[in-house]
Amino acid sequence: MSKPKTAITPTRSEDFPEWYQQVVKASDMAENSEVRGCMVIKPWGYGVWELIQRQLDRKFKETGHQNAYFPLLIPLSYLEKEAEHAEGFATECAVVTHHRLEAVKQEDGTTKMVPSGELTEPFVIRPTSETVIGSAFARWTQSYRDLPLLINQWANVMRWEMRPRLFLRTAEFLWQEGHTAHETKDEAIEETRLIHGVYEAFLRDYLAIPVIAGEKSEIERFPGADMTLTVEAMVQDKKAIQAGTSHFLGQNFSKAQDITFVGRDGNQQHAWTTSWGVSTRLIGTLIMAHSDDDGLVLPPRVATNQIVIVPVTPKEDTRDAVIDACHALAKTLRGKTWEGEPIRVHVDDRDLGGGVKKWEWVKKGVPLRVEIGPRDLESRKVCLQKRTDAANQKAFVEKEEFLQEVGNHLSEVQLGLLDRAIKFRDENLQEVDTLDQLEKNFSEKGAANWCLAPWAGTNEEEEALSKKHRISIRCFPVGELGEGPEKPCIVTGKPTTRRAVWARSY
Amino acid sequence: MSKPKTAITPTRSEDFPEWYQQVVKASDMAENSEVRGCMVIKPWGYGVWELIQRQLDRKFKETGHQNAYFPLLIPLSYLEKEAEHAEGFATECAVVTHHRLEAVKQEDGTTKMVPSGELTEPFVIRPTSETVIGSAFARWTQSYRDLPLLINQWANVMRWEMRPRLFLRTAEFLWQEGHTAHETKDEAIEETRLIHGVYEAFLRDYLAIPVIAGEKSEIERFPGADMTLTVEAMVQDKKAIQAGTSHFLGQNFSKAQDITFVGRDGNQQHAWTTSWGVSTRLIGTLIMAHSDDDGLVLPPRVATNQIVIVPVTPKEDTRDAVIDACHALAKTLRGKTWEGEPIRVHVDDRDLGGGVKKWEWVKKGVPLRVEIGPRDLESRKVCLQKRTDAANQKAFVEKEEFLQEVGNHLSEVQLGLLDRAIKFRDENLQEVDTLDQLEKNFSEKGAANWCLAPWAGTNEEEEALSKKHRISIRCFPVGELGEGPEKPCIVTGKPTTRRAVWARSY
Repeated sequence: MSKPKTAITPTRSEDFPEWYQQVVKASDMAENSEVRGCMVIKPWGYGVWELIQRQLDRKFKETGHQNAYFPLLIPLSYLEKEAEHAEGFATECAVVTHHRLEAVKQEDGTTKMVPSGELTEPFVIRPTSETVIGSAFARWTQSYRDLPLLINQWANVMRWEMRPRLFLRTAEFLWQEGHTAHETKDEAIEETRLIHGVYEAFLRDYLAIPVIAGEKSEIERFPGADMTLTVEAMVQDKKAIQAGTSHFLGQNFSKAQDITFVGRDGNQQHAWTTSWGVSTRLIGTLIMAHSDDDGLVLPPRVATNQIVIVPVTPKEDTRDAVIDACHALAKTLRGKTWEGEPIRVHVDDRDLGGGVKKWEWVKKGVPLRVEIGPRDLESRKVCLQKRTDAANQKAFVEKEEFLQEVGNHLSEVQLGLLDRAIKFRDENLQEVDTLDQLEKNFSEKGAANWCLAPWAGTNEEEEALSKKHRISIRCFPVGELGEGPEKPCIVTGKPTTRRAVWARSY
Repeated sequence: MSKPKTAITPTRSEDFPEWYQQVVKASDMAENSEVRGCMVIKPWGYGVWELIQRQLDRKFKETGHQNAYFPLLIPLSYLEKEAEHAEGFATECAVVTHHRLEAVKQEDGTTKMVPSGELTEPFVIRPTSETVIGSAFARWTQSYRDLPLLINQWANVMRWEMRPRLFLRTAEFLWQEGHTAHETKDEAIEETRLIHGVYEAFLRDYLAIPVIAGEKSEIERFPGADMTLTVEAMVQDKKAIQAGTSHFLGQNFSKAQDITFVGRDGNQQHAWTTSWGVSTRLIGTLIMAHSDDDGLVLPPRVATNQIVIVPVTPKEDTRDAVIDACHALAKTLRGKTWEGEPIRVHVDDRDLGGGVKKWEWVKKGVPLRVEIGPRDLESRKVCLQKRTDAANQKAFVEKEEFLQEVGNHLSEVQLGLLDRAIKFRDENLQEVDTLDQLEKNFSEKGAANWCLAPWAGTNEEEEALSKKHRISIRCFPVGELGEGPEKPCIVTGKPTTRRAVWARSY
């Protein structure tokens, strides 16, 4: 049997990492820049980020958070205050040491710009903002009446990555970082769980990604946290992606940074803080979760355009009428809403061949494609194609019926993607009761299942097993998945109700 | 006569710069951070920025622009390509020279973090992105079919300011920077003017600031531009603030960066580019333009909250009913729209004295304050106060009438601020025909009028006059103001129809 032709080479099964790069390229989402590890997010990719931002921002505001903005640069002295935190980021910090440039004459007569004006104290570009926001919180908090502080920031951050990969791991990335301070430990833990829930629901309802939500092991925690909650996504090569985290920081940062207040009992005490974030990494996760061998597949709720209308104009004399009809349909669609937002429609009236245009939109992952040609004008029909159907599948439907059903079509794509992803996740997550079963699973080359195993090992036992198979505990799941009858730990044999999810990861 | 008590000390007439700092502080818009020259934008200030962003972003998209995101770091070699540009920013660049930190033991036994991992080529943190976006444009442009490129970026930038001032001049600030590339010179100039018009209208219609729109002199141009258009705002000490600029860059950057394309004639040619931006400086301009001796005054279209409802609860037994009525009114108001957006309402039900709360909202500049007390419940009235009225002025109006009229009240505040600002600008802009008149105006200490003068001088003559009086040509106005009968230039005596606006500035 001959191999079916695909728009992306190689295919997922041939070379998953290379397929991913090609999907990003073919969809025109982003590209590498000449600045090592830093990407250019192109309009089609940035549009997805804007939708993610808009929806999450609304959720944060609905749960009482306010946006603010804090300095990009962090004095080294700030970073040093929380030792574990400083150590965690020290090896990947961009350091600013000078504040001007000077033109220096070279031996060959040319001039060269060199750093000048050395700073007495260097700064790092924020890898995350616990320290700089904490120092503001220390200024803002006098009494329990000033709490809780519920702040979010949309910003760029830098972590000097040695092996960058578009969206998934870049030296600079965009994210939101929430930072909150509370009067009591319980309130701070409640906040940490609240946001964990917001992330889980957002990934499911908007990105159509059914995560495994749980708690990180001590080894995998955020540097300086007492508890890290995570949402873990399984992508199509069965690797895990940590898609968002919510940290309970205890009093670690408030003690390091003097975030104190006079409590209800009149005593000075330290606040309890949290931090939480998701980043442009979500876009990489999205791509790896849903796309296929013809390119990107976007869930409608985060698709820059949900519908593209392509005029088919074989003859000059009907050309204008067809294009007009396309724009008229677009206008009608834009007046309709789906899931509370106006439908996003683009008319591709460029003077290019229909096949070229069609495949461009397939590769860009537009959920619905609509073609209108001269004959459709007469019959009052449109030709409808869904990105999640086979590429050659099309349906001719009455225009009026299409307008009535358009929301259902979008929902079908959105929910279809989620269903498929749930099925994939569940098929590839296996319960194991013994170390043998787990080791057999991970000894195979390439894609291995996720293993849910009873776990009561030490940090050292966790590290040893991780290293041996290049795997890690992604989380101890919360909810149904994390609760089981008492079983012997796969390493120590100690009886435990706790379950760990082991997997390979990005 | 005793001095009336004001919420802000000093008053505008006593010490305008210090009054400004105190208004920013009292309104809780922003504060200085411990990072030199970098501010923390607090929620009340960031809310204004979000509204500015949302409205401008819509205008940019309506005019065909798309958002994207480019690297924060710029290699020195990029900057060096356009000599004038590099020189213009060299003295205020934050330079990244290392990519990690190392813990080094000190003599006293403690450890200290020091920069490590020196980069072979240093980077600067973008002071503006012409060079890094230009290098992307060079990759994206092969044929005239790829043009125009109409890109905008929302981002942070750094310029190492030696005399920072909150919002007006900070080392790090937030802005949008538009960058476009075109096939022809005319198209690029048209784009430059289009955005200039967008800025002028935005300042007038949203910020209630009537700018003088015009072209910068050669001396005052953006480094590397062939033409810089500007919108100049007059604030209450009669100084000018450059509130936004739109640059026609000719082929300067496209030649330095090889942004070439094959034209319709089959020949390789250089694109014509533009760039344009406004920043968080707009917020400083807004504050200086409208605020008074009781604090901030916000135009409703960019007010984080347009209405604050304050329950007046003298007695415990009616307390809950009053607070419920306030929340019910807020809910009704939020269901209404003004100028196409849902009305933004806050209920201040904190357990604090009414006077304390009132003055807090006065200082924060909320356009409308509504009080509801137990007696108002019975009479179905509300007590309405406008920020632009005297602080003790109040009106008791039927609740139903208030609901019907609320949009008109907001419009009255919005347009009232604009009218007042137009009047102020026009009263303090004087036409001068001779150098004597101009010098007499600027020889006075403190606030001087803006002067509109016939101008045909050289760069040297412009610089000499600027230096002598610490003034500058803010612009050669476009439109009616810039057109006059031929008159002798105030310095050279040469007949000219051109008019220059001279003023002191921030």
